[in-house]
Amino acid sequence: MSESPETLRFLSAGHARRIASQVGTPVYIYGEAPLEEAARAVLAFPNAFGLTARFAMKACPNGNILRFFTNLGLGLDCSSGYEVERALAAGIPAARITLTCQEAPANLPFLLKKGISFNASSPAQIEAFAAAKPRGELGLRINPGLGSGSTNRTNVGGPASSFGIWKDAVDGARQLAQRLALRVVRLHTHIGSGSDPAVWQRVAAMSLDFVDAFPEVTAFDLGGGFKVGRMSGEKTTDLQEVGLPVKEAFEAFARKTGRRLHLEIEPGTWLVANAGALLTTVQDLADTGAQGYRFLKLDAGMTEVLRPSLYGAQHPIVVIPQTHTDATETCVVVGHCCESGDVLTPAPGDSEGLAPRLLARARIGDLCVIEGAGAYCAAMSAKHYNSFPEAPEVFLRKNGRFEVIRKRQPAKELWRHERRVL
Amino acid sequence: MSESPETLRFLSAGHARRIASQVGTPVYIYGEAPLEEAARAVLAFPNAFGLTARFAMKACPNGNILRFFTNLGLGLDCSSGYEVERALAAGIPAARITLTCQEAPANLPFLLKKGISFNASSPAQIEAFAAAKPRGELGLRINPGLGSGSTNRTNVGGPASSFGIWKDAVDGARQLAQRLALRVVRLHTHIGSGSDPAVWQRVAAMSLDFVDAFPEVTAFDLGGGFKVGRMSGEKTTDLQEVGLPVKEAFEAFARKTGRRLHLEIEPGTWLVANAGALLTTVQDLADTGAQGYRFLKLDAGMTEVLRPSLYGAQHPIVVIPQTHTDATETCVVVGHCCESGDVLTPAPGDSEGLAPRLLARARIGDLCVIEGAGAYCAAMSAKHYNSFPEAPEVFLRKNGRFEVIRKRQPAKELWRHERRVL
Repeated sequence: MSESPETLRFLSAGHARRIASQVGTPVYIYGEAPLEEAARAVLAFPNAFGLTARFAMKACPNGNILRFFTNLGLGLDCSSGYEVERALAAGIPAARITLTCQEAPANLPFLLKKGISFNASSPAQIEAFAAAKPRGELGLRINPGLGSGSTNRTNVGGPASSFGIWKDAVDGARQLAQRLALRVVRLHTHIGSGSDPAVWQRVAAMSLDFVDAFPEVTAFDLGGGFKVGRMSGEKTTDLQEVGLPVKEAFEAFARKTGRRLHLEIEPGTWLVANAGALLTTVQDLADTGAQGYRFLKLDAGMTEVLRPSLYGAQHPIVVIPQTHTDATETCVVVGHCCESGDVLTPAPGDSEGLAPRLLARARIGDLCVIEGAGAYCAAMSAKHYNSFPEAPEVFLRKNGRFEVIRKRQPAKELWRHERRVL
Repeated sequence: MSESPETLRFLSAGHARRIASQVGTPVYIYGEAPLEEAARAVLAFPNAFGLTARFAMKACPNGNILRFFTNLGLGLDCSSGYEVERALAAGIPAARITLTCQEAPANLPFLLKKGISFNASSPAQIEAFAAAKPRGELGLRINPGLGSGSTNRTNVGGPASSFGIWKDAVDGARQLAQRLALRVVRLHTHIGSGSDPAVWQRVAAMSLDFVDAFPEVTAFDLGGGFKVGRMSGEKTTDLQEVGLPVKEAFEAFARKTGRRLHLEIEPGTWLVANAGALLTTVQDLADTGAQGYRFLKLDAGMTEVLRPSLYGAQHPIVVIPQTHTDATETCVVVGHCCESGDVLTPAPGDSEGLAPRLLARARIGDLCVIEGAGAYCAAMSAKHYNSFPEAPEVFLRKNGRFEVIRKRQPAKELWRHERRVL
């Protein structure tokens, strides 16, 4: 446990009070300043022969965020056909969109006709692509046999991962593409969430080895997985640091083969995690005595931020007392669902455990901010559990003004598609 | 790992094929026969002086299911104000509805005026009730200091639980209610998920001790938490077995005090878990070699069934081959999200681990049924992750006909409340 409570990141207490009074809580807030800063850092990723950086939109798919990033020069990495439809509906040009997915969409021919790029993740996807776009250009996603994720669940490379074409099956996939008269112009190896430059170097070198067998490949996509620290003291991947050995690997490859490969990267979390916050209200307190805990109950929970319940993930939590106090208290923070697993302060990496957190002393009605909530929060939650409607989203401008970019969902929408037969 | 693959429960392969061809996959299916059987067993729960049984609707809140159960004689247990609104919108009479919640709704006065019952879970909720319904009758939810859940996350009693009024604070709550001129007519102690009659006996006796101090209490609500086995070989709570010692405890209490208490129970999982299934299609296969795994990829996943990812929960999985085969294969079953944690066959209780499962040999295009998906699946999932829309729900009649009780969500609804400001 840290010695003092975590503090607000891009928000001020004044912003929080203003947004709460005008929009209500719970509400997601994204900051223009940290979003822009992250985008500029990603676009400055070290590269030898050119860079395309795409935002992995599954992390935060609001159309305003998509337009914000693409306006700054990023492309989009989509993980499903529905994400492609969502991006197109948001006005993103198809040429800026790449689809790399577990499940190939039924309307792949339509999406390809629009002009998106596609990375096939399996022989079946190569065949689906060939049927949809005969003699087309595509990428192949490869599982190089190594992952850098910290857990099985965030690890998307290695034998325990189902993502991409297993290394020993790459040659078969190459032959299949050739038989189908396809041109493989890109290889892709997303291998997980790590911040260690040595791992990135190894992956880059190992990945480039696959390029030898693909004479038409001109671009190499390293995916995303740039680890972000949310809690104070946690390390955030230094893109310059991990990018340098990658750049050197591309240069060495060029010296050896004469092929100057274009680099592609697809960060999600890194671009948005610390640029988003969930603003909530303390709606009750409970105490189970000397052998128990002090509980702080929020008007949000796993319906808005699932990561603590799902992974034991740690998010900074900042109480904003209505009247200033230096008093602190060690609390377990829980959500509003009637489920004991709805805990915002699990033990790190152990969602079964409780890890009481030092916070400013809270009273009922105080605001409370869950920081680090820009990635995989609005995008991935136990939405509608206990019939709680979807929370709204707000964009906080650099000038301090804010705008609602998604309205609060009316509760009755939860049952609008039900048909009465009983 | 079991010696032979799990088999279909209430569905037949013919039902599955017919529903898949007419509604598509993924789709949730609920069976009239097992729902009715479960309801009748709950209504036969042993009791000394009368029984009210309510369905904990957070487990499966479709209005058709709510009407089906209330038509058979069950009431409804709601966990949020939104659930009350949903039940009222489904036509359930307010007199059949009880609200017991972590977060008291802002419109509590309105809901109380409609005629619902309320169990207060904290002093703040007692005050909110008093403001909304002066001199009203209410229940108190108590944390008796003991829980029977198998993990912290399914344990809703004991010092690690924030639910209800902690045992040492009950007297203070009683005095508060008295000062506010409220009548406490019901006590409530939901203490988790267990199938052990000895635990139920202890809880019943311990809980009844609290009644002594409340002369106006006429009903005791033991909540839910009747554990259900989903996998073959797992034990399902025998309601007659756990109910008998509870009945005896009520009888002993009556002999001692002359007070004949009405029993209330609130099962969720027990009523619906094995009466629901998720029908999916195998959309791809992957293999990471001799040191790796065979992966079966479905067109559904944590977006429809989150319990395996969240708790390491085990659901039976049944492949329905297009042409009959006796061949089997040991596979890891994964979902369609671009997330390595989207696994349907985690190690039991350990969502980080992979536990390959013996299944009929699957080919792309085969149907695959996730059994035991009636509780906390449509109701609690990582809905809209990767922008996958909500799956439809189907009700399978005893006569073999089926009806769609919730239509498939159009994808564009995922962004309908977004406002374009960027």
